[in-house]
Amino acid sequence: MAGNERLGVAVVGLGGAVATTAVAGMELLRRGRVDTRGLPLADAKGLGLVEYGELTFGGWDLFEDDLAHAARNHAVLTEAQLEAVAPTLGRMRPWPAASNAKFCKNVIGTAEKKARTLREQVRAIRDDLARFKQDQKLDRVVVVNLASTEKAVDLTRPQFATPEAFEKALDANDPDIGPAMLYAYAAIVDGIPFANFTPSVAADVPALLLLAKRTGAPIAGKDGKTGQTLLKTVLAPALRDRALHVDGWYSTNILGNRDGEALNDPASKQNKLDTKGAALDSILGYKVQDHVVQIQYYRPRGDNKEAWDNIDVTGFLGQPMQLKLNFLCKDSILAAPLVVELARTLDLAKRRGECGVIDALGCFFKAPMSQDGEPVEHAMAEQQRRLMAWLGAGRARQVERLPERIRG
Amino acid sequence: MAGNERLGVAVVGLGGAVATTAVAGMELLRRGRVDTRGLPLADAKGLGLVEYGELTFGGWDLFEDDLAHAARNHAVLTEAQLEAVAPTLGRMRPWPAASNAKFCKNVIGTAEKKARTLREQVRAIRDDLARFKQDQKLDRVVVVNLASTEKAVDLTRPQFATPEAFEKALDANDPDIGPAMLYAYAAIVDGIPFANFTPSVAADVPALLLLAKRTGAPIAGKDGKTGQTLLKTVLAPALRDRALHVDGWYSTNILGNRDGEALNDPASKQNKLDTKGAALDSILGYKVQDHVVQIQYYRPRGDNKEAWDNIDVTGFLGQPMQLKLNFLCKDSILAAPLVVELARTLDLAKRRGECGVIDALGCFFKAPMSQDGEPVEHAMAEQQRRLMAWLGAGRARQVERLPERIRG
Amino acid sequence: MAGNERLGVAVVGLGGAVATTAVAGMELLRRGRVDTRGLPLADAKGLGLVEYGELTFGGWDLFEDDLAHAARNHAVLTEAQLEAVAPTLGRMRPWPAASNAKFCKNVIGTAEKKARTLREQVRAIRDDLARFKQDQKLDRVVVVNLASTEKAVDLTRPQFATPEAFEKALDANDPDIGPAMLYAYAAIVDGIPFANFTPSVAADVPALLLLAKRTGAPIAGKDGKTGQTLLKTVLAPALRDRALHVDGWYSTNILGNRDGEALNDPASKQNKLDTKGAALDSILGYKVQDHVVQIQYYRPRGDNKEAWDNIDVTGFLGQPMQLKLNFLCKDSILAAPLVVELARTLDLAKRRGECGVIDALGCFFKAPMSQDGEPVEHAMAEQQRRLMAWLGAGRARQVERLPERIRG
Amino acid sequence: MAGNERLGVAVVGLGGAVATTAVAGMELLRRGRVDTRGLPLADAKGLGLVEYGELTFGGWDLFEDDLAHAARNHAVLTEAQLEAVAPTLGRMRPWPAASNAKFCKNVIGTAEKKARTLREQVRAIRDDLARFKQDQKLDRVVVVNLASTEKAVDLTRPQFATPEAFEKALDANDPDIGPAMLYAYAAIVDGIPFANFTPSVAADVPALLLLAKRTGAPIAGKDGKTGQTLLKTVLAPALRDRALHVDGWYSTNILGNRDGEALNDPASKQNKLDTKGAALDSILGYKVQDHVVQIQYYRPRGDNKEAWDNIDVTGFLGQPMQLKLNFLCKDSILAAPLVVELARTLDLAKRRGECGVIDALGCFFKAPMSQDGEPVEHAMAEQQRRLMAWLGAGRARQVERLPERIRG
Repeated sequence: MAGNERLGVAVVGLGGAVATTAVAGMELLRRGRVDTRGLPLADAKGLGLVEYGELTFGGWDLFEDDLAHAARNHAVLTEAQLEAVAPTLGRMRPWPAASNAKFCKNVIGTAEKKARTLREQVRAIRDDLARFKQDQKLDRVVVVNLASTEKAVDLTRPQFATPEAFEKALDANDPDIGPAMLYAYAAIVDGIPFANFTPSVAADVPALLLLAKRTGAPIAGKDGKTGQTLLKTVLAPALRDRALHVDGWYSTNILGNRDGEALNDPASKQNKLDTKGAALDSILGYKVQDHVVQIQYYRPRGDNKEAWDNIDVTGFLGQPMQLKLNFLCKDSILAAPLVVELARTLDLAKRRGECGVIDALGCFFKAPMSQDGEPVEHAMAEQQRRLMAWLGAGRARQVERLPERIRG
Repeated sequence: MAGNERLGVAVVGLGGAVATTAVAGMELLRRGRVDTRGLPLADAKGLGLVEYGELTFGGWDLFEDDLAHAARNHAVLTEAQLEAVAPTLGRMRPWPAASNAKFCKNVIGTAEKKARTLREQVRAIRDDLARFKQDQKLDRVVVVNLASTEKAVDLTRPQFATPEAFEKALDANDPDIGPAMLYAYAAIVDGIPFANFTPSVAADVPALLLLAKRTGAPIAGKDGKTGQTLLKTVLAPALRDRALHVDGWYSTNILGNRDGEALNDPASKQNKLDTKGAALDSILGYKVQDHVVQIQYYRPRGDNKEAWDNIDVTGFLGQPMQLKLNFLCKDSILAAPLVVELARTLDLAKRRGECGVIDALGCFFKAPMSQDGEPVEHAMAEQQRRLMAWLGAGRARQVERLPERIRG
Repeated sequence: MAGNERLGVAVVGLGGAVATTAVAGMELLRRGRVDTRGLPLADAKGLGLVEYGELTFGGWDLFEDDLAHAARNHAVLTEAQLEAVAPTLGRMRPWPAASNAKFCKNVIGTAEKKARTLREQVRAIRDDLARFKQDQKLDRVVVVNLASTEKAVDLTRPQFATPEAFEKALDANDPDIGPAMLYAYAAIVDGIPFANFTPSVAADVPALLLLAKRTGAPIAGKDGKTGQTLLKTVLAPALRDRALHVDGWYSTNILGNRDGEALNDPASKQNKLDTKGAALDSILGYKVQDHVVQIQYYRPRGDNKEAWDNIDVTGFLGQPMQLKLNFLCKDSILAAPLVVELARTLDLAKRRGECGVIDALGCFFKAPMSQDGEPVEHAMAEQQRRLMAWLGAGRARQVERLPERIRG
Repeated sequence: MAGNERLGVAVVGLGGAVATTAVAGMELLRRGRVDTRGLPLADAKGLGLVEYGELTFGGWDLFEDDLAHAARNHAVLTEAQLEAVAPTLGRMRPWPAASNAKFCKNVIGTAEKKARTLREQVRAIRDDLARFKQDQKLDRVVVVNLASTEKAVDLTRPQFATPEAFEKALDANDPDIGPAMLYAYAAIVDGIPFANFTPSVAADVPALLLLAKRTGAPIAGKDGKTGQTLLKTVLAPALRDRALHVDGWYSTNILGNRDGEALNDPASKQNKLDTKGAALDSILGYKVQDHVVQIQYYRPRGDNKEAWDNIDVTGFLGQPMQLKLNFLCKDSILAAPLVVELARTLDLAKRRGECGVIDALGCFFKAPMSQDGEPVEHAMAEQQRRLMAWLGAGRARQVERLPERIRG
C-alpha cells in the first residue's frame, strides 16, 4: 500500500480541458462533492495504488491562464462544480511550455519557454520537475502528455535508433525532434514515469524506449482510448467471435474543443487517424476494405463530442447487416479519469521496479505501445483482464462484481 | 477428430425461419455456394467437432409444409439461394409436433400429434428420434428446440424437483408440463444432447437437470443470444470497466416474423423479457433502475429485425452521457449458425463423456443455465474465452487471428 | 396594435414544467436575460398581438408549491436562470385546483378545491378568474389547460350534445364530466378564450363548441404539437408529395417528467395515443398499416424527452427504404413558447370578434379541432401558411425571411 | 390531355444507374409488373401530361454497354425485375458521348465522340437528336442531363454573358466550355426542353438562359433533390416556423456507386457541395455558422445511399436540442421517377408555350435556377404548392388526398 505518500503529476498541457477536469475532479473528490463514478480503478483497493487524495498536479502550458480561468473556458464542469474549486484552481498557473509551431500549427500560445536550443529546453523541463518535487514536498513524480496533437515523424531515421544517436541529434537541434519527444526524454533520462495520452510521437521512439530500460522509467502510451475507438475495440471482438465479416466501418466524429481545432491542421489530423485505424484490423485479423474515420471540428458541441459509426457486416449465407452507434460523450469527462489512473498505475510500476513499456496498461490507449515491436492486444475485454491480472486484482474483482446491496 | 460420422440434428420447429435457414445453409455450404462466413467455429479445426457436411437435419413442426415451401414463406434466403436448395428442401417434411395451445396461443398449426396423454406424446417423440437415426443411418443425434416461445411456468412446484416427481406428474398429465419440457425429457431420458434456443421452460427444470446427469445427456440453453442481448453483453462489461454507471437502458425491438407474432401473446412475451433482462444487472453488479425492453410485432420488416437501444450513463463528476445503438439485423441469419454450432459442440461434449449443463456454451445464450444454481457469466468476451478454452483451442485461436493473407 | 394592455393568462396546471417555464421565460425576457429565440411569433410585429411584456400569469394546481419551488423541481431552467427569476416566481402560488382522481390516476396533489358539487367547482373557477382580473388590473384574460392528461370520454352521449344538456348534467354531478371540461365551461360561459394544450377532453365537446359561439369565446386545441408529432406532420407531406408509400411508422418516446408519470396510467395513455395517431393517415390519405406509437416513462431523462422514429417506405419499383429520426428535445422548452403564442393569438381573435374554434391556430396542435366536424389540416407547412395568412402577415413574413445581417 | 403522342427522352448518361432505372421502370410499368408508387405525378390525371407509356428513351454515354448489361452492374433492380426487362434493355445501346477529362476526372469511358472541335460536338449532338426523333417516330423530344458531376466554372467570365459571346467561344474551342454546356446548347438552340439533374454547369449560364427565351426552350435545373437535401428543405421550414435557431447542421453521406466515385475528384465534389449548401441558409434567413456536408465514397453500399444528419438547434431560453436523421435510401430509386416527371412537365411547358426557366419545377432540384437571378424558393412544401398550382391541380389534389378506400 502506498500509505501517506505524495505523488506529483506533471502534465504537459495543464491548462487544457482534460487536465483541468482531472485537477478539478480530484479536488471535488477530496471535498466529497463528487463520488468515484467514472474512475476505473476506484474499487482496486489494497493493491498498492496511491490514494486519489495523494495526487498533486502541476505542469506546462502555452497559455498562461490560471486553471480556474482555463476550466471556465473549457465549460466541462457544471457551474456549481466550478465555483467549488475556483479558489484552489485559481492559485494554480502552468509553467511556460516548450513548443514548436512546425509540429502543431493551429495552437499558438503566449507562454513559451525562452530556451533557444533543444538542450536548454530539456534542461528547463528537468528543472521544472525538480522544483515541482521540492516545492510541493512530493515523494515521486510522473509526467503525462496531454498537449495538442503534433505532426507525424519518420521514426526510421537513424537519429531515433539509439539513445546515443538521439542525444547527438539533440545537441544538433535536429528539426525532427518535436516538443513531445523533449518532454519524454526529460522525464525518462531521470527515470521518471512517462505517459503519452496523445497521438504525438513522444516516448515511442526506439532510442527513448531503450533509454527507459536503462534509467528504469516506466512508459505508457499512446493516445487515450476514450470514445469511438473504445467502442470499436469492444465491438470488433464480438463481430470476430460471431464470424460476422466487416465489409466497411464508417466512423465520423464531431467535436468543438481546442483538440478539434488542432485537428483542423491536416498534418496533426493524419497522425490522429493513424492511431485510430490500427486497432480494428488487428482485432479482426484481416484488413477492413472500407474503414473510414472522419474527424470534424464543429463548434456547437464544445467539449461534448459525438461519434456516429456505421458498420456493414456480412453474416451467414453472405447476407448483409448493419450496426450503427451514436455516442454522445464528453471528451474530458471520459479522458480525465484515465489520466488519473495512468498516474497511479505508472507510479505503482515504478515502485515495483518495472520499466520500459508497461504492457498491462494497454486498455487505456488507442495505439498501445510495445517494447520491442511485438504485436499488441487491442480487444478491450482482454486488455482489461490483463490489467486486472497485473494489479493482482483477482480477489478485488470478485468483490467489485458483487451486487451493490451486498457490497454496501 | 470426428472422422466420417453422421450427426442427426432433430429440431423442434423445423419449419421455422431459423431451422430452414440452418438446413438450407448447410446444403448451400455443401454445394460450395456460400462460404463459412457467420459460422463462429468454422476455424476451429482439429478439435473433434463433426464437419458441417456430416450434419443431417430432421424434426417436428405444427405446420406440415415441406421445407422449401416454408423457407420461401420466411423470405430469408435470396431467390437464387432458394432455387439452388429447393429440390433438396422440398423432399424434407417435418414430423407432426407435440403442442399445447395453453402454452403458446398465437401459433396454431395443423400438424399436431394425435397422442392424447403426455406419456403417449413422449413415446411418440422418442419413436421419432429412433426412426430418424435408423432411417438416416446416423451415428448420433442431438435435439434442438427452436419452437415458438411458450408461457412461463412456476419451477418451484414440487413436481419439478426430482426426476421421480416429474415422471409422476407426466403420468398424471400435469397441466404445467408444456411441450418444450416434453421434448427435453424425451431426449434426456435416452441420454441424447438437448439444446434450448428459446425462452421456453424446457430442460431448465431441476428434475430434468438431475436426470441429465444420470443419463449422461449434455444440456445447453437457453434463448439464443443473437442481436440486442448480444450487444448488451458486449458493451456492458466495457461500461463497467470504465466505471460508467448505467442509469437507464432502453431497448426496443421491431420484428415481423412468426416469432414476433407469437410474442404478441403477453404471456409468451413476458417469458422472453425475463430472459432478456437478467444479463445486464449481472454484468454490472448492480440493478439498473430503468431497464426497459420492448418487443413490437411490426410487419414491414419480416424476418429482418431492428433493435434500437438508448443507454444513459453517468461518468466522472456525475456527468451524463448517452450511447445509442441501432442494429439492423436478420434474426435467422444470426441464429441459424449458432444452432449449427450448438449441435456440433453438444455432440463433442457427449463424445467426451460430459453431461448436465455444459457451462462453456454460455456464449450462445441470453440466459445461460447452470447446473446447480451457481452464478453464470454473461459477459460475451469472457464467455468466448471459456468456449475457446473448453475447445482446447488456444493454438487454433492464434491461427485464427493471423491476417488472412498469411492464413491463406 | 395592442398598445399598453394587460393580458392575464390563467393556466390549469400552473405549477407544471411547461407553465413554470413559460412564466420564467417571460420574466427572463422582460429582464433581457434571454432573447426571443423559440418564440414562433416574435417577428410578427405590428399585427395586433399583445407584447410579451404585457402578459401576467396566474392559475391553478393540485400542488401548492410556489412557482420558484416548482420550477426548481422540474429542472428545466439553468441554475443561473432559476436564480434570476426565483424572487419573482417565489411570490407566485397556484390557486387550489378542481380535480377528479377518476380522470387522472397517477397525479395526486394536496391543493384540491373544497367545492363538493360540479356547480360549486365551476363557480369557484369563475370566481378565481374574476379575482385574478381585478387584483392584477388586467384588461382581458385567457385560460390555457396544461394539466396532466385525463382519461377519454364518450362524446356521443346525449349530455354532451347541447349547452342545455350539458348544464343539466352539471347540475346532476354527471360522473363523465372531468375537470378539464369544467375549466373549459367556466371560461367559455363568460366568453373567455380557452386553449387546451393537453389530450384531455375539454372544449372539444359539441355542447361547449356551441356555447362558445353563443358567448363569443375563441377556442383552440388540442394537445400541443411539440416534438415527434411535429416532425411527423413535417415529414409526411413530403413523403406524400414524392409518392413514397408509408408501410410502417414506428414511434417510440422516452420521457421522465410528471407528464410521463401520468401516462403510466393506461387510460390517460390511450387518450394521448389517440391524438397522436390521427395526423399521419390524414396527411397521407390512406391508413398506415403498421403505425405504432409508444410512450415510455423513463426517469433518467427528466424533462428531456427523446423520440426515435423508424419509417418504412416503398418507392419506385416497389423498393423499400428507411428513414429514422432521433429527436433529443426538451418538452417544456418546446411547449412553453407555444402556450405564450396561443394566449396572444386567442386574445387577438377575441378582440377581432372571432369565436368558436379558431382554425388558423391548428399548427400548434397534434389534434386540431374543427367547429363542425369538417376535416382539419395536419400538414405543418400548410398550417403555418394559414396562420400567417390569418395574422395578415404577408408583409411581416417577407421581413422575417431577410438575412439577419440585413434585418439588424 | 396529351393523347396518343410520343415523347422522346434523350438522356446524357443513359447507361448510368438513374437512367437505366428510369428506362427499366417505365418498361416494368408498361408490363404491369410495378405500380406507380414513387412517381410523384401519377395522380395528376387530366392535366395534359403525356402518359408514362408514351415515353421513349435514348441517349449518350461514355460506356458503350447495352442497358441490360449496365443495369445489371448498377444492381438497382431486383433479379426478377431485371430478367423481365433484359430483352428490351438489351436492345438499347447509348450513343457515343461528348466528354472532357478536364471536367470530370474519375469517369473514363471508351465511347467518346470522334468530333474534334466544340462545334463538331454540338453538331453531332443535334444530329443524334434529329435521328432519334425520326427513327423512333417521336412527336417531341426533351433532353435530361444525368452525367457525372463536372468541375465548377467561373460564370462571370464574358464569354458566358450573351448568346453571341458564347457562340464565339464555341468557335474558339474555349476550354471553359464543358460537356454539359454543349448538350444544353445543342438542345436549347433547337428549342428543345432541357433539364439538368446534376450539379454541373449546363444551362445555368446567362448566355444559354437568354438563348432559351429566344428559341422557346423550357429549362429546368439543377441537381436533383432526392435524399438528404430533400429532408433539409422539408425540416428547415419547420425549424424556422418554430423559431428554433440552427447552430449547426452536420450532414454526412456514404454511397458506393459511380456517382460516389466521381465525387472522389475534389473539384467535382466541391461543385456538389456548393449546390447542397445554399438551400438551408435561404430557408432560414440567416447563415448557419457550422453547416458541414460530407460525401464519402464507401463501396459496401453500392447504389444504396445513407445519409446521417445531426442538427443542433437552440430553442426557448437559449436551451440546446438535437435532431438526428438517418436516411437509408436508394439513390436511383428516388431519382429515376423525378427524371420521368421532369420530362413530362417540361414537355407540358413546351406545349403551353412557356420558355426559359420553369420556376414551378423547383421542387425537383437542390439548387433551383431562376431566369434573372431573382431569389428562389427552397422550402419543399411551398415548392410543391407551386407545382400543383402550375399544373392547375387544385382539383386533382383534393382527389389525391381522399382515403384510398374511397378513391378505389
